[in-house]
Amino acid sequence: MPCGYKGRVCFDGVRFKVDPYEFFEEMLNDLDAYSFSVKSDSIYVAFPRTTSAYNHKGFGLFEPEDPLGYRESGTFLKMMAVALHAKRMHFDTMYLLPVSMHSDRFKKGTVGSPYAVSDPLRIADYLADPLLDLSAEELFGAFVEFCHRIGMKVILDFVPRTGARDSDLILEHPEWFYWVDVASVGKYAPPKAPELGFRQLSDEDMAYLYQRQDVRNFLSCFRWSPSYTEPEKWDNFVKANRGKDFLPELVKTFGVITPPGFSDWLNDPQPTWDDVTFYRLFLDHPDVAKPFVGDDQPPYVLFDVIKASRFPGSKPNGELWDYLSGIIAYYIERFDIDGARIDMGHALPKELEQRMMEKALKMKADFMLIAEELNPEGDVRAKESNYGAIIGNSWWMLPRREKIVELFTDSTRRVLPLWAAVETPDTPRIFGRLPYHEALQRLVMSAFLPNSYFVVNAGLELLEKQPMNLGLDATFDDKWVLPRDDEFYGKLSFFDHYALHWDSEKDLTYIIGKLNRLRVTHYDAMAKICSNEPLMVKHKGAMFVWNNTEKPISYTEAPLLCVGTAVLDTLQTDGVALFKHE
Amino acid sequence: MPCGYKGRVCFDGVRFKVDPYEFFEEMLNDLDAYSFSVKSDSIYVAFPRTTSAYNHKGFGLFEPEDPLGYRESGTFLKMMAVALHAKRMHFDTMYLLPVSMHSDRFKKGTVGSPYAVSDPLRIADYLADPLLDLSAEELFGAFVEFCHRIGMKVILDFVPRTGARDSDLILEHPEWFYWVDVASVGKYAPPKAPELGFRQLSDEDMAYLYQRQDVRNFLSCFRWSPSYTEPEKWDNFVKANRGKDFLPELVKTFGVITPPGFSDWLNDPQPTWDDVTFYRLFLDHPDVAKPFVGDDQPPYVLFDVIKASRFPGSKPNGELWDYLSGIIAYYIERFDIDGARIDMGHALPKELEQRMMEKALKMKADFMLIAEELNPEGDVRAKESNYGAIIGNSWWMLPRREKIVELFTDSTRRVLPLWAAVETPDTPRIFGRLPYHEALQRLVMSAFLPNSYFVVNAGLELLEKQPMNLGLDATFDDKWVLPRDDEFYGKLSFFDHYALHWDSEKDLTYIIGKLNRLRVTHYDAMAKICSNEPLMVKHKGAMFVWNNTEKPISYTEAPLLCVGTAVLDTLQTDGVALFKHE
Repeated sequence: MPCGYKGRVCFDGVRFKVDPYEFFEEMLNDLDAYSFSVKSDSIYVAFPRTTSAYNHKGFGLFEPEDPLGYRESGTFLKMMAVALHAKRMHFDTMYLLPVSMHSDRFKKGTVGSPYAVSDPLRIADYLADPLLDLSAEELFGAFVEFCHRIGMKVILDFVPRTGARDSDLILEHPEWFYWVDVASVGKYAPPKAPELGFRQLSDEDMAYLYQRQDVRNFLSCFRWSPSYTEPEKWDNFVKANRGKDFLPELVKTFGVITPPGFSDWLNDPQPTWDDVTFYRLFLDHPDVAKPFVGDDQPPYVLFDVIKASRFPGSKPNGELWDYLSGIIAYYIERFDIDGARIDMGHALPKELEQRMMEKALKMKADFMLIAEELNPEGDVRAKESNYGAIIGNSWWMLPRREKIVELFTDSTRRVLPLWAAVETPDTPRIFGRLPYHEALQRLVMSAFLPNSYFVVNAGLELLEKQPMNLGLDATFDDKWVLPRDDEFYGKLSFFDHYALHWDSEKDLTYIIGKLNRLRVTHYDAMAKICSNEPLMVKHKGAMFVWNNTEKPISYTEAPLLCVGTAVLDTLQTDGVALFKHE
Repeated sequence: MPCGYKGRVCFDGVRFKVDPYEFFEEMLNDLDAYSFSVKSDSIYVAFPRTTSAYNHKGFGLFEPEDPLGYRESGTFLKMMAVALHAKRMHFDTMYLLPVSMHSDRFKKGTVGSPYAVSDPLRIADYLADPLLDLSAEELFGAFVEFCHRIGMKVILDFVPRTGARDSDLILEHPEWFYWVDVASVGKYAPPKAPELGFRQLSDEDMAYLYQRQDVRNFLSCFRWSPSYTEPEKWDNFVKANRGKDFLPELVKTFGVITPPGFSDWLNDPQPTWDDVTFYRLFLDHPDVAKPFVGDDQPPYVLFDVIKASRFPGSKPNGELWDYLSGIIAYYIERFDIDGARIDMGHALPKELEQRMMEKALKMKADFMLIAEELNPEGDVRAKESNYGAIIGNSWWMLPRREKIVELFTDSTRRVLPLWAAVETPDTPRIFGRLPYHEALQRLVMSAFLPNSYFVVNAGLELLEKQPMNLGLDATFDDKWVLPRDDEFYGKLSFFDHYALHWDSEKDLTYIIGKLNRLRVTHYDAMAKICSNEPLMVKHKGAMFVWNNTEKPISYTEAPLLCVGTAVLDTLQTDGVALFKHE
């Protein structure tokens, strides 16, 4: 509820009930109060479908479209209120998970994953709001403009390596995809070679890999594009199915289907990625594989094909490259976005990645490019490729007490800033994995990691326990951290509708806002580590201290902020504090 | 897999893969083998959406509509195979939960309940099968004909007391429904009167009830039908919204909505029935309430209104009665069904109930009418009302060891047969609540309960543990009996898509078939209880014995069937057996 709200309100002790038109009108009239500029270098991560989801009717269960006419799942109208909430906490950047149209095919829950993109150039319809007569495109444009008006940047997540199994691009461009015999999909899985271990492929592996019988069998599942084998029938099919949900009909007519994706690591234990398929980036086989596969082999997917950055072919799929490298540019031109994270950028051919990024930087010199690089040692390559930041591994280090000093020391050595995040949309939630005081302590620490962006995943401020996805550092148990009678028990917001627990009694909005204000005045990206035990990090006019020793330490200045244990003039064991030191 | 199947099959050790067209063609060509007539007086209970649901693509997760074009949720095509499966187990009757179009509004899971009927005269669209070019109506007709061809009767479940909150009948007949101010729905709940206890209402309660302030407040939520208050606007609304999903627009236009249903018991702890609303059976208030509510009170719902059988008004809603009493008749005429269970029949005005039943019996003299009467002492009233059977309470007694003798003794005294069922679609599953051998023992017992129909709830033969609904004798814990990694963990098939565990290793198809064959030769509805300890029940030429004593008993005849413990020439403690005794 915005401070100073002047509209009519009915408050039931937990929730404020307002007239939505009046609410948003008031909000828009009051923007000047928020147009002050802060440079906190801090990012609020949102997934619009979930982050702005709420049971607006106020009774019964959450319904994506409710009987009173409200869209309870997220919309870009409601995301404006979320942006204001983030601004009130002094974030200067909003980072959104993919907002493009996604497929609902091969889904793992009741609704498709945002990463199964079916049309990269279209905003997901359901992010429009039935309260307004605006398309999702128009509303997203308004959202970006709104963020700019309140001095926030907008960064989007893009997925250029894979598309949905029934991507809208298939009808016009069947040759941008791989095809397998539909009879083979039941058993389709990357061949294993246990004797090679869990690792990425090298040139030397090729001869061995391609002579294996199971690899030969695997390759025999692939088929030529139906537009190539039956061009006339294909043309008729396209005419009859344009704009339709065409996959079952395609399968029935041609007996082929796009295959699921999988990891580029050999012997990766994770299952196939059933809801996505790789784009066919080269018209020929990878150069290193050519001695082993003939021209009569239909286009296929294997570890080398996936990792096109290391194992390119010789004939780029020119039209596809033009299309892919134009996606971010389109979003800059049409919506004026300020940055992008590129999903699986590491698997794109260098030249394609560069074209994509150069186009963006030409249009907006300060366009922020974030690499999906989890290994901090990937900083150098990422910088060479013009990225401005990497994700890094703080989400893995911060929950582990014994890794924290290493994280702080290492971050100062990196040539690019990394995300300082106690959790990401792919990991367990910090309040789901650590007790309250420890989780809070790690959150405070993350705000003072040198050479980083402070990154808060929406819901963290509500002490949300339920992860959004089990992609990183998660076990099956992490799926079941809510009480059984919670209506979102066991739901992952990547695959199901989910609403954050906005009505929870406790929240960290104040403390996160305070951390961001401290960042504005004291945070130093070049901060120096003065000591490891206790951990002491010298920021601008303030010292960040974590007493990771056994004994109380004493520090006479008045703390600006302290977390974890009571801090008076001695800093007790495990205490975290920020002191004025000059 | 039908014995003697001649089509092409691919067997992977668990599942048979067939060409669906060939499979059903073979099946239809082979019907003569199943056209033999058995009179086992046993009922197979199916819920088509779930009972014939299966992951046909054979990989990944269950999807109601799969990417290969199969409808994995149930259809009446696949229900034919289920009927044959039931016939192979020698059931002579198929009882189906409601198959009419239902609403997806106010749903408790991802799909609407079959009891939230939105159009009683239309078969749910999704029960058609995309493999065929037939409407759901045509396919349901074919299903009934199929059942008749294999000598099985078809009984349907009907819901004449309530409709969906956004029933299709609303647009043409707004005066068949009650209306409340939409602002009141958030707190809408039946008034409580704790001092009166948990019970049904009597005439004497009225004066007290109606003077209570919370009752007056409750009554003030009700509104006149929008067609009455704003007739012109209503006409325009109907014109603009016919055939559409109109509820949100209706709410927005008129500020009213149909209220949720609730129990006719005072102080019932169960929550409101959010997905249904009561039909307005009388145009005036209940006669007993007239001294306490004026003509200016808009039509309202209260315990007396709900229980219209006991508390009628004086002005029947004639058109509505004509409509409701014609529903079953329509299904007989159009589809040739053989029986009906009437949901909440006990709450219908006697005259309406009778008209409904007389019409049916006139069309089909042996039409089977089953009362939703859970109290065995309701047998006399049900018989007077022309019902042929009641549900009774065996589903409550059989899982409780100490109640079994009472159940057997009591059943012989009833003037109507009751259901002998270890579980129903509303209760926990017997294999979810009792250990294997005990559950199996109760199942065998249920087949020899005097004066009963042997009723098996689809899935029982697969040892299915997960209930379909938590309506009766269930606690919240009963929802979580599957392993957490089961894709249907926590799903109730009334509210979510669900597929039975058809691939499970163990099944009781053989033993249930054997029970039915024993029923054909030995079951005697008039069976006599010869002894209580051990329980001995004399059927035709065979004695059913349950050794509920502490000591082994001896019985020299060879058992036809024994369950629970090894039975040689002595029947051990807890053993169940059927012996030839003549």
